[in-house]
Amino acid sequence: MTISSPHQTGNETRLACRTNTLQTTTSGHAPSHLQANLLVLPSRHAPSFRALCTRNPVPCPLLAESATPGSFSTLKSHIPGLSGDQIAADIDIRTDAPAYTIYRDGELVEYTSDLIAEWKEDHVAFLIGCSFSFEDALAMRGVVPRHMVTRRTVPMYRTTVPLCAAGEFRESTVVVSMRPYLAEEVEVVRDVTRRFGLTHGEPIAWGWEAVKRLGIEDIAAPEWGDVPLTVDGRVWGEGVDGTEPVFWGCGVTPQEAVMRAGLEGVIMGHKPGHMIVLDVTDEQVFGASEGK
Amino acid sequence: MTISSPHQTGNETRLACRTNTLQTTTSGHAPSHLQANLLVLPSRHAPSFRALCTRNPVPCPLLAESATPGSFSTLKSHIPGLSGDQIAADIDIRTDAPAYTIYRDGELVEYTSDLIAEWKEDHVAFLIGCSFSFEDALAMRGVVPRHMVTRRTVPMYRTTVPLCAAGEFRESTVVVSMRPYLAEEVEVVRDVTRRFGLTHGEPIAWGWEAVKRLGIEDIAAPEWGDVPLTVDGRVWGEGVDGTEPVFWGCGVTPQEAVMRAGLEGVIMGHKPGHMIVLDVTDEQVFGASEGK
Repeated sequence: MTISSPHQTGNETRLACRTNTLQTTTSGHAPSHLQANLLVLPSRHAPSFRALCTRNPVPCPLLAESATPGSFSTLKSHIPGLSGDQIAADIDIRTDAPAYTIYRDGELVEYTSDLIAEWKEDHVAFLIGCSFSFEDALAMRGVVPRHMVTRRTVPMYRTTVPLCAAGEFRESTVVVSMRPYLAEEVEVVRDVTRRFGLTHGEPIAWGWEAVKRLGIEDIAAPEWGDVPLTVDGRVWGEGVDGTEPVFWGCGVTPQEAVMRAGLEGVIMGHKPGHMIVLDVTDEQVFGASEGK
Repeated sequence: MTISSPHQTGNETRLACRTNTLQTTTSGHAPSHLQANLLVLPSRHAPSFRALCTRNPVPCPLLAESATPGSFSTLKSHIPGLSGDQIAADIDIRTDAPAYTIYRDGELVEYTSDLIAEWKEDHVAFLIGCSFSFEDALAMRGVVPRHMVTRRTVPMYRTTVPLCAAGEFRESTVVVSMRPYLAEEVEVVRDVTRRFGLTHGEPIAWGWEAVKRLGIEDIAAPEWGDVPLTVDGRVWGEGVDGTEPVFWGCGVTPQEAVMRAGLEGVIMGHKPGHMIVLDVTDEQVFGASEGK
């Protein structure tokens, strides 16, 4: 499977977003470049949010944040051995995702094409790893994620697995993404994704028994993304085509945690699937999460 | 509350263990020095175990490991900004805990006073943070952990909260320690322990509702440690004395994960409560886990 893309680098993709040339999902753009989930908070919540990521690195892998409160063009790196400029040099966090989500007092109020009107001097942006990074690698190893074949959005589920609490972020749970595979493919899929430690890494659980263990209510009714289908377009589920669910930590987790915390004021994020693409490549960060 | 201790530094405590002068719990020894859980594995399991810790840093905070396979006296640091020698200079991992546990083919076979007979050139030791670190700090803030008052071992529970899988370590769950507090004390307790990021940090959950959420079967029947009591010696539980349970990630988690993985051969650890005390102090590592 080859992936055609009009944008080959992070910088090209960001520029296309900045000029509103690209307003759709960034899936498949700038292959092998890291894509990032975005979360923008008032600075008083930044220490707790940073701790939430540190304590829950699989669903919330923190890549970088605003160099100082209010900064939307200079990053402080959280990737060992890389500077903020190496992660993304020419960046404007307010404009470089194809679309954004605005929350006010805990309610989703609108989707926008930029954050210029809402951005304040007190805002701190956080960039969090995204599983788009490992999907190309899976495709190249012949275990193509199902939603890439059916041209849909990966299904994402709320679980009952508690996040480790951090300050005002408490009583939230892990969100997972799901890709169906044959039982005999699971070890290949684990091996391929293991190296992507800063972008969720290997699956956290797999198999039909894991659905119950994770507290997922209905595999056919994901809370985010599209209903999973078989290759020939039927609704997918247990026993339908011999595949079983494989679950990864998902970058929607921090947005869910922020919403559950009921924070007052304006909180901003990317629109799911519409990521900020970075300069740094997967190869550059292999091993960076291994604590060596 | 003052804590009397015959050993004031990590080095003194380790030497007392090495000469078999100290064979009991290290609780209260060398106040403000980090104490470590120990796990010793054949080197082929080291990469997955390291990943298990990286992916689950709250229950499994990795402080250091053998500098090379077979090394019991030189450490490689996992604490940013500190060298292995700064963590513990004059150390012999085989002798410097008061007591050890030996597992063979997944079964606990004996407790020993040293690991000299079992240690092989292929063994890799891992040192993992311990909540003894923050107990002194809680006592000094006037929120003395209950088991210190009743002179018992902290109760520890198996939960149904899945650990993020890593290689051969799969389908294991988080182990928690529990200390009862009044509802109005919880925020103080959270504040005090938050800084101890390399030694489990702030609680992961609290309150009676959390017992169910964590999947704990019976609060009066901990899987490790002692049954929790009231200050006047009655069995503790919901409604007994107005306190509620507060749960922290626990360093027994990695031993449980290793046992559940059913690894063949000889695996070794400290005996619970009988830790290896380090040279490094709490003050030196505050902030080290914050990913800054």
